[in-house]
Amino acid sequence: MSYDFSAELASTAIDIQQALDALLSPHALRGPGDPPERLVAAMRHGSLNGGKRLRPLLLRQAAGVFGVPAGRTVQAGLAVEMIHCYSLVHDDLPAMDDDDLRRGQPTVHRAYDEATAILAGDTLLTHAFGVLAHDSLDADPAVRLRLVAELVAGAGAGGMSGGQMRDIEGETGFLTERAIARMQAMKTGALIRASVRMGGILGGASDEELCWLTDYAEAAGRAFQLADDILDVVASPEAMGKATGKDAGAGKQTIVARIGLEAARRQLGEVIHDALSAILPFGERAAGLRATARFFAERQS
Amino acid sequence: MSYDFSAELASTAIDIQQALDALLSPHALRGPGDPPERLVAAMRHGSLNGGKRLRPLLLRQAAGVFGVPAGRTVQAGLAVEMIHCYSLVHDDLPAMDDDDLRRGQPTVHRAYDEATAILAGDTLLTHAFGVLAHDSLDADPAVRLRLVAELVAGAGAGGMSGGQMRDIEGETGFLTERAIARMQAMKTGALIRASVRMGGILGGASDEELCWLTDYAEAAGRAFQLADDILDVVASPEAMGKATGKDAGAGKQTIVARIGLEAARRQLGEVIHDALSAILPFGERAAGLRATARFFAERQS
Repeated sequence: MSYDFSAELASTAIDIQQALDALLSPHALRGPGDPPERLVAAMRHGSLNGGKRLRPLLLRQAAGVFGVPAGRTVQAGLAVEMIHCYSLVHDDLPAMDDDDLRRGQPTVHRAYDEATAILAGDTLLTHAFGVLAHDSLDADPAVRLRLVAELVAGAGAGGMSGGQMRDIEGETGFLTERAIARMQAMKTGALIRASVRMGGILGGASDEELCWLTDYAEAAGRAFQLADDILDVVASPEAMGKATGKDAGAGKQTIVARIGLEAARRQLGEVIHDALSAILPFGERAAGLRATARFFAERQS
Repeated sequence: MSYDFSAELASTAIDIQQALDALLSPHALRGPGDPPERLVAAMRHGSLNGGKRLRPLLLRQAAGVFGVPAGRTVQAGLAVEMIHCYSLVHDDLPAMDDDDLRRGQPTVHRAYDEATAILAGDTLLTHAFGVLAHDSLDADPAVRLRLVAELVAGAGAGGMSGGQMRDIEGETGFLTERAIARMQAMKTGALIRASVRMGGILGGASDEELCWLTDYAEAAGRAFQLADDILDVVASPEAMGKATGKDAGAGKQTIVARIGLEAARRQLGEVIHDALSAILPFGERAAGLRATARFFAERQS
C-alpha cells in the first residue's frame, strides 16, 4: 500500500482547523470570567489562517509509527500548532521582525494593534498547555504530563524562544555558519523536534525508538530551515504569501548568506539523507515521516 | 498558638526567591539547546526583584488548611509567581501601560529592550507549566494536571489575559462600576483565585471545601484590587516603588474614580468580611488565609 502524503497533509490541516475553530470560542476558553471578543478574534486571526500544519502532521506521523489512529493525535497537534502560531504573532511585532503580512493577510498587530497582538500570543501560549492537560487527550495522566514537559522544552529558553533571542542578538554581530545552525536548531528545530517526540510519546515509544525519532526530527528540522533560507532567495513573494528576499535585506544571517546557494542545496540533500537513515529501523511504518522529509527537500512555498 | 503573618510572608518570599534563583539558570532551563544568557538575565530581572510573593503565600496558606507542609507548596507557588511576573513584564511594555519603573527598578524593556522583554515574558510563562509538570511537585500525576488546568483558567482568556484586554479596551470608553469590577475580577482576581484553589487541590480539598476557598479567593482578590486603587490615590511613589496617581492621570477607570474614596473604603471593609465569612467552616486551620485578608485591608504599599 503506498502512502498518500497529499491526502494526509490535507486531512491534518482540516483536523487542526476544526480543532482550533472549536477551541477558540468564548465558550471553550471560559475561565472565571468571559473571554473578551476582541481577544478571541485576534487569537483566531493569528491561527486560523491557512497554515500548512506541518508540526501536527509530523506528530501524527510519528504516532502513526506505533499505530496510533490519526484522530487520537489531534489534541496534541493542536497544542503544538498553538505554540507555533503564538510565536509567529510575537515574531511579527514591530519590536521583533516588524512584518505587515503573514500568509498574504495583515499580521495580528496590523489587523488589531500591538497590545492585542501581544495578548493574543500570550493567550494562545497559555491555552496550549490547557489542551495538553485535558483528559480527552490521553487517558494516562503520566503521558499528558510528559507531553507538557516536552512542549516546554521545545518552546522555552533552550528551544524556540531562546532561538528567537539568539536570532535577534545575531543581527548586530557576525555569526559563523556553526552559530547560525545552532540558533536555527533552537528557533525552528526545537518545536519540530518536540512535535515528533510528542508523537512518539503518545505511541508509547521506547527510549531507543525515541532516540531514532529525535535523530530524524533534528535532521528534518535542519532540512526545513535550509529549504526556508533557500526559498527566501529563489521564491516569489506570491508563492510564499509574504515578502521574500527579506533575510538579505534585513542583514539576516542565514546559511545561504554564509555558504552560498549551491552549498546550501547540497547540505539540504545531506540532512534529508540523515533524516531518512535515522528511521530505517521502523521500516514501512515510517512511510509518513519519510514522505514529509522528502516534502521538506522539495517544497516550493 | 497564634499565627505569625509576618514570619510566613517573609519565609514564603525567601522560598520563592530561592526557587526562582535555582530555576532561572542556563542549566535548569536547558532544552535541546543552551538558553541565551541575555534571555535568562532578562527573566531574572523581571522576577527576582523583591516582589511580596502574595500569590504563593495564598497558595501555601490554602494548602496549609489541609496540613500540607510549606515546603511541599513551593513549586506550585513558583509557577503562579512566574505567571504573575510574566504579566507584569508584558503589561509594562510601551504598547501596554508603558511603565519605566517597577518596584523602583527599570522595567525589563527599559533595562534591556522591547524584543527581549516580550521574549522574557513568553519564556517565564512557558516554563511555569514546566514547573507544574515536574514530578518533584507532587507524586500524583492527576494532581499536577489539575494544577495545570487551574493555572490555564486563571491566566488565560477568561482570566488574567482576558482581563488585561478588557482593561485596555476600557481606556477608550466608559465602564460602569459593575464593568470595572468584572474586568478587575479577571485581570487581578483570576490569578489570586487560581492560587488559592491550587493550594486546595494540593491539599486534596473536597468539592465543597474548594467552593469555600473559591468564595474566599474571589472576595480577597476584590479586596486586593480595591486596596490597590485606593493606594494609587493616597500613597506616595516612594512607598509603592512606582509612579502613583497614574490611574487618574491615564484616565484609567477604577472603582475609586467611579464611586469615590470613602465608598471604596467601605466596600473594601465589606469584601474583607465576605472573605472571612467564607472560610469560617475551616476554623482555626484557616488562620493564615484570615491574616492575609486582613493584610489586604491594611496594606500601605
